[in-house]
Amino acid sequence: MSIHGKNFIGNKLSATSNKSSKIYDINSEDALDGDFYHATSDEVNTALQLANKAFIVYKQKTQKQRADFLDSIADEIMNLGDELIVRTMNESNLPRPRIEGERGRTIGQIKMFATLLRDGSWVEASIDTAMPERTPLARNDLRKMLRPLGVVSVFEASNFPLAFACAGGDTASALAAGCPVIVKAHSSHSGTSELIASAIIKAVKKCDMPSGTFSMVHGNGRSVGQQIVMDERVKAVGFTGSTQGGMNLFDIANKRKTPIPVFAEMGSINPCVFLPSSLKNTKKLASVYAFSITLGVGQFCTNPGLILAIKSSKLEEFKNDLAKEIINLKPAAMLSSGIQEAYETNKEEAIKQHGITVIAQALEENTIAQGRPLVASVNASEFMKNNKFQEEVFGPYSLLVECDDINELDKVVSCLDGQLTATVMGSNSEIAEHINLISNLENKCGRLLFNSVPTGVEVCHSMQHGGPFPASTDSRFTSVGTGAIKRFVRPVCFQDCPSKILPQELKDENSLNIFRLLNGEYTKNSI
Amino acid sequence: MSIHGKNFIGNKLSATSNKSSKIYDINSEDALDGDFYHATSDEVNTALQLANKAFIVYKQKTQKQRADFLDSIADEIMNLGDELIVRTMNESNLPRPRIEGERGRTIGQIKMFATLLRDGSWVEASIDTAMPERTPLARNDLRKMLRPLGVVSVFEASNFPLAFACAGGDTASALAAGCPVIVKAHSSHSGTSELIASAIIKAVKKCDMPSGTFSMVHGNGRSVGQQIVMDERVKAVGFTGSTQGGMNLFDIANKRKTPIPVFAEMGSINPCVFLPSSLKNTKKLASVYAFSITLGVGQFCTNPGLILAIKSSKLEEFKNDLAKEIINLKPAAMLSSGIQEAYETNKEEAIKQHGITVIAQALEENTIAQGRPLVASVNASEFMKNNKFQEEVFGPYSLLVECDDINELDKVVSCLDGQLTATVMGSNSEIAEHINLISNLENKCGRLLFNSVPTGVEVCHSMQHGGPFPASTDSRFTSVGTGAIKRFVRPVCFQDCPSKILPQELKDENSLNIFRLLNGEYTKNSI
Repeated sequence: MSIHGKNFIGNKLSATSNKSSKIYDINSEDALDGDFYHATSDEVNTALQLANKAFIVYKQKTQKQRADFLDSIADEIMNLGDELIVRTMNESNLPRPRIEGERGRTIGQIKMFATLLRDGSWVEASIDTAMPERTPLARNDLRKMLRPLGVVSVFEASNFPLAFACAGGDTASALAAGCPVIVKAHSSHSGTSELIASAIIKAVKKCDMPSGTFSMVHGNGRSVGQQIVMDERVKAVGFTGSTQGGMNLFDIANKRKTPIPVFAEMGSINPCVFLPSSLKNTKKLASVYAFSITLGVGQFCTNPGLILAIKSSKLEEFKNDLAKEIINLKPAAMLSSGIQEAYETNKEEAIKQHGITVIAQALEENTIAQGRPLVASVNASEFMKNNKFQEEVFGPYSLLVECDDINELDKVVSCLDGQLTATVMGSNSEIAEHINLISNLENKCGRLLFNSVPTGVEVCHSMQHGGPFPASTDSRFTSVGTGAIKRFVRPVCFQDCPSKILPQELKDENSLNIFRLLNGEYTKNSI
Repeated sequence: MSIHGKNFIGNKLSATSNKSSKIYDINSEDALDGDFYHATSDEVNTALQLANKAFIVYKQKTQKQRADFLDSIADEIMNLGDELIVRTMNESNLPRPRIEGERGRTIGQIKMFATLLRDGSWVEASIDTAMPERTPLARNDLRKMLRPLGVVSVFEASNFPLAFACAGGDTASALAAGCPVIVKAHSSHSGTSELIASAIIKAVKKCDMPSGTFSMVHGNGRSVGQQIVMDERVKAVGFTGSTQGGMNLFDIANKRKTPIPVFAEMGSINPCVFLPSSLKNTKKLASVYAFSITLGVGQFCTNPGLILAIKSSKLEEFKNDLAKEIINLKPAAMLSSGIQEAYETNKEEAIKQHGITVIAQALEENTIAQGRPLVASVNASEFMKNNKFQEEVFGPYSLLVECDDINELDKVVSCLDGQLTATVMGSNSEIAEHINLISNLENKCGRLLFNSVPTGVEVCHSMQHGGPFPASTDSRFTSVGTGAIKRFVRPVCFQDCPSKILPQELKDENSLNIFRLLNGEYTKNSI
C-alpha cells in the first residue's frame, strides 16, 4: 500500500489543497513516502457536517453494535501487518519491540472498550420508579443514564504514534461512548495515521456505520485545529501534548458561544519523594531510576523528572551511583528533529538556572543528533525560589532537589504544581509516619505510587491518568483506562418516558443484564 | 435570636468593615432587622486560610463521621424553629407552606447525602489486584476512588432561600464530598442565611470538625465573590443564578493560574412541545400549564417559558383557554424589588419584539408591585430570526411558538439553546412516530419529560438538573440529587499503597461493605 497523503472526509478521500507536507528521516534527512495534503476549510467543514449528521444515527446504535465496530477496527489494524510497524518505526525512531508493544496496547485498549460496552454497566443507569400515592406530592418515574455528547475532536500526540493517536485511547473511548470522531493527524507521523485511518474506515464500512462516524485531516494546529475546535458542532476535545498546545485549545473552547470541555493532558514532571529509608541500597535505586528516566529516551509523560530527598551521606552515594548509571547509558534518537532540538534547548536553559549542578550527562555516541540523558541537582531553597525548575524538560532528564530536612521537603511538595503522578519511596513504617506529607502529595497528583517508578501506565479500570492542572485541564477525568469513556458522555434523565422509546438500558426488563441503581439499590433485577 | 449581620469566618463572627447593607420589606419598604457587614478582603482571606487548613483534617474524616455531621446540621436547622420560617417569609415574600416545604426539602437533601455516605458505594472504588507473574510485564496493584477536590466556594441563589442557599444542595454535596465550604450570602435573604450559618457552625462544633470547615461572608459578588473565586486555594465553585453572574465566575475561573470547574446553573426557558394529539382536551392542558407557568410567581428555573405547537383550530382553542386561565390568576409579590423590576423590564422588552402577540396578561390586583403573569405567541419563522426570544424572562411568563407543520417544529428545536429540561406532550403512539424529533430534543436538555410539566424537581438518585450550555456551564453534572456530590471529587489512583495508609474504602477487607469494581466485576467481596 503506498501512502497517498489524502484527508479522510468521512468515507471519502480528499486532497483539494495545493499545500502539503513531507516527513523526513531524522538521520538520513531523506523524505519518507507521501505528500500530506493540508485539509482546506471546506474539507474540514464537510467532515464536521458529516460527523454531525452521523451522530443522529450513530448514537442510536446499541452498545453491542458499537462493540462489534470497535473489534472490527482492532482486526483491521492487525490486518495492516508489518507495513504499519515499519512505517511507524521510520516516523518515530522507536525500535521494533516498542512499536509492536504499542500496537498490542492500542489493540488491547480498543478491545477493552468493546468488552466494557458488552458488559454495559458503565452507563450508570439509575431508576427511581413512580410513587403515584406519595403525599403531599406524587413522584414521577425518573430514569437516568450516560448519553453521548456529540462530535469529538481528537488531536494526536507525538510520543505515542499508535496508542495516543489516530485509533488511540481518545478515539476508542469517544467511539465507544457513541460520539463520531474527527482526528487531526500529527505532522510527525502522518503516514502511520493514514494507515490507521484506512483501517478504521474499512471497519466503518464493514459494520455499516454512517459515513462521518470517523474523519481524519492533515494540516497545522493553528488553522485546521482551531477551525475544528471553534465549530459549534464539536462538543468535546481530546488532546495529549504540550502545555502551550493544550492551553490554546482550552482557551478557544472556553471563548466559544457554547464552551465545551477540553481534555488536554499536558505533561508533568512526576515528583518522586525518596524517604531516608529508601536509600539503603543506593546502587539498586540508582539503577531502577536511571532506567525509568531514560526509558523511551525519556519521552513518556510519566517520566520521573523530579526527585525530592533529604541531604545525607547516603544521598551522596546515590548521586554517585546515579552518575555512573547515566554516563554509561547509550543516547538514542528522539521522536523527531523538532523534539530533539527542543530537548537540547530546554536542557541548556534548565542547567543555566542559579544553583543547579549537573550530576552527570551521558557521553555523546556519534555525530548524529541524539537525546543525551542528563541528571542535575539543586538545593530546595533555590528550587522554591524559581518556578523555571518546575517546567518539564521533555526527554531523558531529571532534577534532584536536596532538602535540609523533612519539613523543607514538605514545603517543596506544597509548592509543586499539579502532576500526573507522584511517587513515594520508603519503608512501610516510614511512610506511615508521614501521613500528612502523603496526603499533601495526593492533593497534587492523579496517581500516587509507592516504591516503584512512574513510567508504565497500566490500561485498566483502576488507572487514573490525569492530574490537577497544569498536568491536565480537567483532573476529574482520565485519558487511560476504561474511565476515559466518561469524558464524552453526560447524564440525561427521562421522566415518565414511554417504554417504547426508552434506551434499552433503562427499560423495565433489563435485557442487557446490567447493574442499575434501582430506587437506591445496586441490582441487576428487572422491574 | 436577633440578627447580628456578621460574617462567619470559620467558627468566629467578624464584622470589621464599615460598609453594611440592609434588607427592606418589598411592600412596606421598612427595613428588616439586621445590618449585614460586607466582608473585608482580610476577612475573606482568613476564611480561605482556615478552609484550606481545615481541608487537611476534614478530608481524613470517615464517611460515617461526615454523615453524622450532615445529620447534625439538619437537626440544628430544625432547632431554629419558627424564627427561620418567619424570617425567610419576610425576606422572600414566599408563603408559609412554600417555605415550610422548602425547609423540608433542604433537610431532606442534607439527610439524603448522609444516607449516601453511610452506604458508601458512591465513591466508585475500583481495584485491580497485582499480577506479579504476568508476562511480558507484571501488573502493579492499582486502587482508585473518588477523593475530595479541596475548598469549595458556594454562591447562594435568590429564588430558593433555603434549598439552593447556605445549607442547600451545593453546600450539602460539597461537605458530603469532604470539601470545606465558603458561602457568599445572597443580599436579598442574608438574615435567613445568617440563621442557617449559625446552625451549621453549631454542628461543626458539636461534631468536632475543624474551624474553617464552613464559613459564610456577606458583600457583593464583584468584590467579595471575585476575591474568593480568584484565590488559588479554592478548587471549585457552585452557583445558581443569572447567566451574567454565572459567566463572570466562569470567565474568572478559567483565567486563573490554575483554572477550576465552575458549576453554574444559569436558567433555562424549558421548551414544551405540544404534539397535535396533546390538544384533545385543551381546557385541562391550559389549566395545567397556566398553573406551572405561574407556580411560585414563575420563579423556578424549570418554568415552562416556551411552548412549541403546530397551528390548528385546536391550538386556537388552547390559546383561548390559556387566556382565560391567565387573566384570572392572582398576581403575587416577587422575591425582591430588584427581581420585580427586572421582570417588568424584560417582559416589556419581549413583547416589543417584531411578530409577537400578547395572548393574555393577568389583571392588576392593587397598587403594590406584583408579578403579573403574561403569555404571548409568535410565528416560528419570526422566532427563528430573533435570538431575543430565547432569552429567559424570569417570572410568570411564557411564549407560544406557532409552527406551520412538524418539520418547522423540528427546525425550531434544532435552533434552541441548551436547556435544563424539555417536555413532550402527546400520545405514546404519536411520540413513537417522531423519534428523531425526540432525539434532537434530548441533545438540547438535561431532563426530558413526557406528558407533564417541567416544574417540580425531585431530589433523588435519578434526577439530572443541569443541561447543555447555556443552561449550565457543565452539562456533565447535576446540582440536584445524589449525583451533585460528583462535582466536588476527582479520581485518585493508589499504586502499591501500603494497606495501613489506604483509604478504608480501598482496603482488602471491605469493612464498609460497599460495591467495588474488583478486577472488572461489581462486588461487595473482600480480597
